[in-house]
Amino acid sequence: MAAAAITCSAADLHPLLGGAANASAAAEYLCSRFDAISNKFIDTNYAVDNTYLLFSAYLVFSMQLGFAMLCAGSVRAKNTMNIMLTNVLDAATGGLFYYLFGFAFAFGGPSNGFIGEHFFGLGMFPSSSFDYGFFLYQWAFAIAAAGITSGSIAERTQFIAYLIYSSFLTGLVYPIASHWFWSADGWASPARSDNLLFGSGVIDFAGSGVVHLVGGMAGLWGALIEGPRIGRFDQGSRTVSLRGHSGTLVVLGTFLLWFGWYGFNPGSFLSISKAYGESGSYYGQWSAVGRTGVTTTLAGCSAALTTLFGKRLLSGHWNVTDVCNGLLGGFAAITSGCSVVDPWAAIICGFVAAWVLIGCNKLAEKFKYDDPLEAAQLHGGCGSWGIIFTALFAKKKYVNEVYPGIPGRPYGLFMGGGGKLLAAHIVQILAISLWVSITMGTLFWFLHKLQLLRISTDEEIAGMDLTSHGGFAYEYSDEVELPILKNRLNLTRKDSSAI
Amino acid sequence: MAAAAITCSAADLHPLLGGAANASAAAEYLCSRFDAISNKFIDTNYAVDNTYLLFSAYLVFSMQLGFAMLCAGSVRAKNTMNIMLTNVLDAATGGLFYYLFGFAFAFGGPSNGFIGEHFFGLGMFPSSSFDYGFFLYQWAFAIAAAGITSGSIAERTQFIAYLIYSSFLTGLVYPIASHWFWSADGWASPARSDNLLFGSGVIDFAGSGVVHLVGGMAGLWGALIEGPRIGRFDQGSRTVSLRGHSGTLVVLGTFLLWFGWYGFNPGSFLSISKAYGESGSYYGQWSAVGRTGVTTTLAGCSAALTTLFGKRLLSGHWNVTDVCNGLLGGFAAITSGCSVVDPWAAIICGFVAAWVLIGCNKLAEKFKYDDPLEAAQLHGGCGSWGIIFTALFAKKKYVNEVYPGIPGRPYGLFMGGGGKLLAAHIVQILAISLWVSITMGTLFWFLHKLQLLRISTDEEIAGMDLTSHGGFAYEYSDEVELPILKNRLNLTRKDSSAI
Amino acid sequence: MAAAAITCSAADLHPLLGGAANASAAAEYLCSRFDAISNKFIDTNYAVDNTYLLFSAYLVFSMQLGFAMLCAGSVRAKNTMNIMLTNVLDAATGGLFYYLFGFAFAFGGPSNGFIGEHFFGLGMFPSSSFDYGFFLYQWAFAIAAAGITSGSIAERTQFIAYLIYSSFLTGLVYPIASHWFWSADGWASPARSDNLLFGSGVIDFAGSGVVHLVGGMAGLWGALIEGPRIGRFDQGSRTVSLRGHSGTLVVLGTFLLWFGWYGFNPGSFLSISKAYGESGSYYGQWSAVGRTGVTTTLAGCSAALTTLFGKRLLSGHWNVTDVCNGLLGGFAAITSGCSVVDPWAAIICGFVAAWVLIGCNKLAEKFKYDDPLEAAQLHGGCGSWGIIFTALFAKKKYVNEVYPGIPGRPYGLFMGGGGKLLAAHIVQILAISLWVSITMGTLFWFLHKLQLLRISTDEEIAGMDLTSHGGFAYEYSDEVELPILKNRLNLTRKDSSAI
Repeated sequence: MAAAAITCSAADLHPLLGGAANASAAAEYLCSRFDAISNKFIDTNYAVDNTYLLFSAYLVFSMQLGFAMLCAGSVRAKNTMNIMLTNVLDAATGGLFYYLFGFAFAFGGPSNGFIGEHFFGLGMFPSSSFDYGFFLYQWAFAIAAAGITSGSIAERTQFIAYLIYSSFLTGLVYPIASHWFWSADGWASPARSDNLLFGSGVIDFAGSGVVHLVGGMAGLWGALIEGPRIGRFDQGSRTVSLRGHSGTLVVLGTFLLWFGWYGFNPGSFLSISKAYGESGSYYGQWSAVGRTGVTTTLAGCSAALTTLFGKRLLSGHWNVTDVCNGLLGGFAAITSGCSVVDPWAAIICGFVAAWVLIGCNKLAEKFKYDDPLEAAQLHGGCGSWGIIFTALFAKKKYVNEVYPGIPGRPYGLFMGGGGKLLAAHIVQILAISLWVSITMGTLFWFLHKLQLLRISTDEEIAGMDLTSHGGFAYEYSDEVELPILKNRLNLTRKDSSAI
Repeated sequence: MAAAAITCSAADLHPLLGGAANASAAAEYLCSRFDAISNKFIDTNYAVDNTYLLFSAYLVFSMQLGFAMLCAGSVRAKNTMNIMLTNVLDAATGGLFYYLFGFAFAFGGPSNGFIGEHFFGLGMFPSSSFDYGFFLYQWAFAIAAAGITSGSIAERTQFIAYLIYSSFLTGLVYPIASHWFWSADGWASPARSDNLLFGSGVIDFAGSGVVHLVGGMAGLWGALIEGPRIGRFDQGSRTVSLRGHSGTLVVLGTFLLWFGWYGFNPGSFLSISKAYGESGSYYGQWSAVGRTGVTTTLAGCSAALTTLFGKRLLSGHWNVTDVCNGLLGGFAAITSGCSVVDPWAAIICGFVAAWVLIGCNKLAEKFKYDDPLEAAQLHGGCGSWGIIFTALFAKKKYVNEVYPGIPGRPYGLFMGGGGKLLAAHIVQILAISLWVSITMGTLFWFLHKLQLLRISTDEEIAGMDLTSHGGFAYEYSDEVELPILKNRLNLTRKDSSAI
Repeated sequence: MAAAAITCSAADLHPLLGGAANASAAAEYLCSRFDAISNKFIDTNYAVDNTYLLFSAYLVFSMQLGFAMLCAGSVRAKNTMNIMLTNVLDAATGGLFYYLFGFAFAFGGPSNGFIGEHFFGLGMFPSSSFDYGFFLYQWAFAIAAAGITSGSIAERTQFIAYLIYSSFLTGLVYPIASHWFWSADGWASPARSDNLLFGSGVIDFAGSGVVHLVGGMAGLWGALIEGPRIGRFDQGSRTVSLRGHSGTLVVLGTFLLWFGWYGFNPGSFLSISKAYGESGSYYGQWSAVGRTGVTTTLAGCSAALTTLFGKRLLSGHWNVTDVCNGLLGGFAAITSGCSVVDPWAAIICGFVAAWVLIGCNKLAEKFKYDDPLEAAQLHGGCGSWGIIFTALFAKKKYVNEVYPGIPGRPYGLFMGGGGKLLAAHIVQILAISLWVSITMGTLFWFLHKLQLLRISTDEEIAGMDLTSHGGFAYEYSDEVELPILKNRLNLTRKDSSAI
C-alpha cells in the first residue's frame, strides 16, 4: 500500500472491510470514487499545465515582435521595411515548415538520436506525450533562431537569399540541433534513459546553445561571407558606426524581448503543477519556475549595469543601445542554466556576459566584421558563455529536481559536481558550431557564389525599402514637416506651391 | 452507482458497510469527505478557468493597442492623433456602454432571441452563469468591432460623427448581433435547446461574422457614403495610394494583433478544464484550446505567404504592408471555424483568404471605394469567407466536442456533414449584412444629410490633428533634424540663428 | 468531525468501521488516500496560484515598457534616449537592489513595524510564506515608483543625480513605505493581528498610496527644487507647453500601462483559488479578481471620457494626450480601492479623478511648477484622491472577504462603515507625504546644493541625448528624407552630391 496513492483497489479493500458480500460492494463504491478523484486530478493538471504552457508560448511569440522592433530600430531607415518583413516571414514560413516537418525532425522520437522521424504535419496529435500547446511553444522557439541570423546580415542581403536560408534554418538546421539536446532520445540529451554523454548529457535548459548559438553562428557565417556594409570601415581603417535610425524602437524591442523571455526561460519547464519531494508541501515546480524568473531577471540586470558603467569608462557616455544589448546578452547567457543555478550565480553570469559582449565587439571591430545587430557577438558569444557558466554553477539539488531520475548525475564544477558536465557542454559548443558551419556556412557560400547573397552597391546605397519593397517605411515629410521646414527656411510662396 | 461520481451518498453507503449504527457514522464520515473533495474541485476549476479566461481577456484587450498602432501607421501623419483617439475612446466608451446596457443586450437571457434584457449595469453579478471575467472578455470583443469601422472611414470623418456611430455600434448594433449567435437563446445560436436554425445553428466560434463582418460592413457603408479621400482617385481615374506614414507602426500593430488573437480565438472556449470523453485521459478542452491556437497560427501564416508571393507577381515587389494585411485577413477568416477544423484545413482557409483580400481590393479600386485600412475588404470580405469555410470544413468530432449535447448535428459539407450548416451560415452572412446595413447604413446616411459626417476640404488637406486635436503627433524637426539639415544644406550662420 | 475536511483520521474512522483488527487497516487504507488527496490539492493550488501570480507579475513588468514609451513620447526628441535609459535602469538597478535588500526592508517580518529585517538576498527562499513568484511580483511594483519620479524631472536632470535618487528610492524609501501598509506587521497594515490603526489599518490594495503617491511626491520635490525647464514659463508669464515629440508613443505607452494594470490591480490578490464562504459555490477569489478588473476598467474609462469632454470645454479641441493622462489618472485613483468597491463606484472614482487632474494641472501652471509628464499631479494628486475614495466607498462585504478574520472592521463612510477608515487613510496620505518629503526632499536638496541635480543651460538647449548619451534617438534625415527634400526643394546636383 503506497502511502501517497489516491487510486484504490477494491480487491485490497474488500477483505479490510470484513470480507462479506456487501463489503465487496462497499469497496467498489469507495474505490470508484477514489478513481474518479484520481482522474479528475489528471484533468485538472492538464488544464493547469496547458494554461501555463500556452500563455508561455504567447509570451515567447511576443519576442518576435520584440525582434522586429529591435532590428528595425538598429538599421538605417532605408532598410526598415526589409528587416521587418524578414521578422514577419520568420514567423509565417516557420509556422508552415515547423508544422509540415520541423517539429517532426525536432521531436519525432523514437529516433536514431540525430534526427526525429515522426509527427510530420502533426500526425497522431494529440497523444499522451505531445499536445498542440507543446507544438505552439516549440514553434515560437524555432522562429527566434532565424530572427537572430537576419540581424547579422541586415542591410545588404538579397531578399531571395533570405527566403532560402531562413527556410533551411527553421526547417532543418535548428530542428535537428534541438533534437540532439531536447528530444528524449537526442544523442546529447540529459533525458536519455541510457548512454548519457559523459554520464550527464547537456543541460541547455532553454537554449543558450540550441537557439542562441545556432542563430548567432549562422549569422556569423552569413556576415563573414557577405562582408561589411558599405561605409562601415572606411579607407583609413576608421570605423563608422552606421547608427540605427531609432533608439526608441531599440528600447521598445528590448523591453518586449525581456517581457517575452519570461515565457522563454520559466516557460521551458513546460508544466508547473509537479511537486518536488513530498506532495503537500510548499515546494514544487511552481517554485522552480519562479526561481527561473528571478535568475533570468538578475542576469539581465547585472549585465545591463555592468555594460552601463563599462561602456561609460570605455566610451565616455551613458549609451542606451549598448545597455540594451548588454541586457540581452545577459539573458542569452542565463538561458542555458536559468533553472539550475542560484540567483547569486545569475548575477555573476550577467556580469561576465557583459564583458564577453564588449570583448566580442572589440574583436569584431578589429577583424572588420560587421554585424548591424551585434547578433553573432551577443547570441553566439554570450550564448557560449552561458553554456560554460551552467557547467560551472549548476547546483546539485536543482539539477536533480529539474532532470530527475538519474541519481548521482554530474553538476556544476564550481559547486563540487566534477568536470563531466563541463566536458559535455564543451562538446555542445563544438557540435553546434560544427553543425551550423557545415550547413549554414556552406549554404551562404553557395548563395554567394551564385550571386544570390548580396545586393548591388547601388541598391545598398539607395536602401532596400526603395529597391525591393515598394517604398520607404516613413512618410512624415510631405504633410507634417515640410510646412514647418518651409517656414523656418523662409522658402518663398512659389517654392511652397510646388510641393 | 455512476462510475465517475466523486460525491457519495451516506444512505447508499451505510448498508454496504454492514448497516450497524456505527456504520452510519462511518458512511457519513466518509461521504462528507468525498463531498468536500467534490466541492474543492469546483473551487479549483473555477480558479483555473477564470485564470484562463482573464488572461485571455487581457490578450484580447491588447488587440486594441494593436489596432491603434496599425491604424496610426496606415494613415498619413497629419491624421495620426485623430485615429488613435478613436481607438482609445472605443475602449473607454465601450467600457461604460457595455457595462450599462451592451452586455445586457448581448447576453441578458432568457430573451426573445433577438435582444437580451437582463443584467443591466451588471445587476445580479456574479451568478452561477456569469462572472465578471466573462464581462471583461466580452467587453474586449465589443470594442474591437468599432475599431474596424473607424479604419474604413479614417482621415475624413468628423469627430462628432465618430462619437455618435461608435456609441451606436458598440452599445446596440454589435450587442444585438452577438446575442443572435452567441447567447444561449439567440435565434441562430448553436447552443439553443430547441428550434436550431436548420437543425444546426451558426458555428461562429470567435466571431468572423459577429465581430469582423459587423465591423467591416459598418465601415463599408460609412466609406461609401463619405466617398474617397481627396486625391485618392485623381481626375484621370488613376489611383494614388496615399500611403500610411509609418510602416513600423503597421508591423507593430500587426504583431500585437497576432499576439492578441491568441486570446481572441483559443480564449473563446471561455474555460479550459473540461475533459472530453472519459475523465483521466490526456484529451480535453486544453487540447482543443491548443489546436485552436495552431489553426489560428497556420491560417495567418498561409495567408501571409500567399499574399507575399501573390503580390510579388502582381506588383513586382515584396510588400510588407500587404503581407501584414494578408496575415490579418487569414486571422479574420479562421476566427469563425478555428475550434472545429483541422490544422491542414486552416492552411486552405488562409490561402483562400489571401486571394479574397486581393480580389476585394481590386474590386474596391475598380469601384473607387476608398478604405484607408482595407477594413471592409479584410474584415468583411475575409470574415465572410471564414463563415463559408467553416460550413465546408468543420469536422464532425470537433463540432460535437465544442458544441456538445446534440447528437447528429450538421457539420462541414466537404467533411460529409451535409449542407445544413452551410445554409445556416449563408443566413448568418445575409442577416448580419442586412442588420448592419439597416442600422449603420441609415445612421451614416442621416449623419451625411445633417452634414455631420465628413470634414471640410480645407480640414482634410490640413489634417485633422491640426484642426481638431490641438496639433500634430510628431515634433522631430526643431530639435533633432534641423541642425543636421542645416549642416548638410550648408545654410549660413544667419539662417541658422533664425531657427 | 468538521463538515468540510478532506483529511481523515484513522483513529476516528477505525471504531466506525467496526473496531476489528482489519477495520484498523481499512481505516488507514482509506485515510491515507484522503491525505494524499488533500496534499494533491495543496500542490494543485500552489500551481494555479503561482501561474496566476507569475503572469500577473509579467503584466506588471510590461508597465515598465509602457512607462518608457509614455515618457519618451512626452519629452522632446532631444531627450528621448535619456528618459528611456532611466526606464531601463529603473528595472535593472531595481532588480539588483530589491534582491539584495529592498525586498528584505519591505517584507522581512517579523519586524518592528517600520522596516523589515529578514530575507536579504532572498535568504531562506522559498518558504511556506514567500516564494520566488512573490518576489518577482513585488520587484515589478518597486520599479514602477522610480519611473513615476523620473517623469517629473525629465529633460533637465543630471544622469548622475538620476542614478543616486533612483537607487535610494527603489532600495529604501519605497520598500519602507510598502512595509508599513503591505507587510503583515507594518504599523498601518490592515492584516496586523492586533493594534490596527484606528481599528482598521489602511486599505491600499494595490498602491494608490504606496506606489503612486510615493512616486508622485518624490517627483514633486525633485521638480520643485530643479525648477521649470528653460522656456516653459517665458518672461511675460505666458505658458509654453513644450510638447512631447511623439503622440504615437504616448498612446502606445498609455495602452501598455492599461494592459499592465490588469496585473497591477487584479494581480494584487496574489492568489486566485480561494473560495469565499462555502466551498463548492461559484463565488470565490476568482470572482473578486474579475470584479477588480472591471472596477479598474470602468474607473479609467470614466476618467478618460470626463477628460475628453472637460478639456474640450476648456481648451476647444479633442486632446489625445490629455485623454491618455486622464485615463491613467483614473487608474492611479482606483488602484487603492479596486478590490473593495462596486463597479458603479469606480465610475465615480474616475469621474472625480479626471477633475482632480485638471485642477492639479491648473494649480501647477499657476505656481509655475513644471512636470513634463504631469507625474506629480497624476500619480500624487489622483493617487491621493483614490486613497480618500476608498475610505468613502469601500463595501462591507468586499472588505471582509478581501481582508478576512476581523469581524466588524470599518469600511467606507458613505456605505455606512463610519469614519475610522477615513481617519486611517488621511494618516496614510500624511505619513507618506512626510516620509517622502523628509527622505527624497532632503536628497534632492543636497544634490542641488552639490550642483549634481540640474544640467547646464547649454546642455539643456542642446539636449541630453547629444551631451550625455552619444547622440540623438532618431536618424531619419540622411537616408530617407533628404532625397525627398532635395527633390522637392529643387536642390541642384551639386548640393546633392555634397550630402
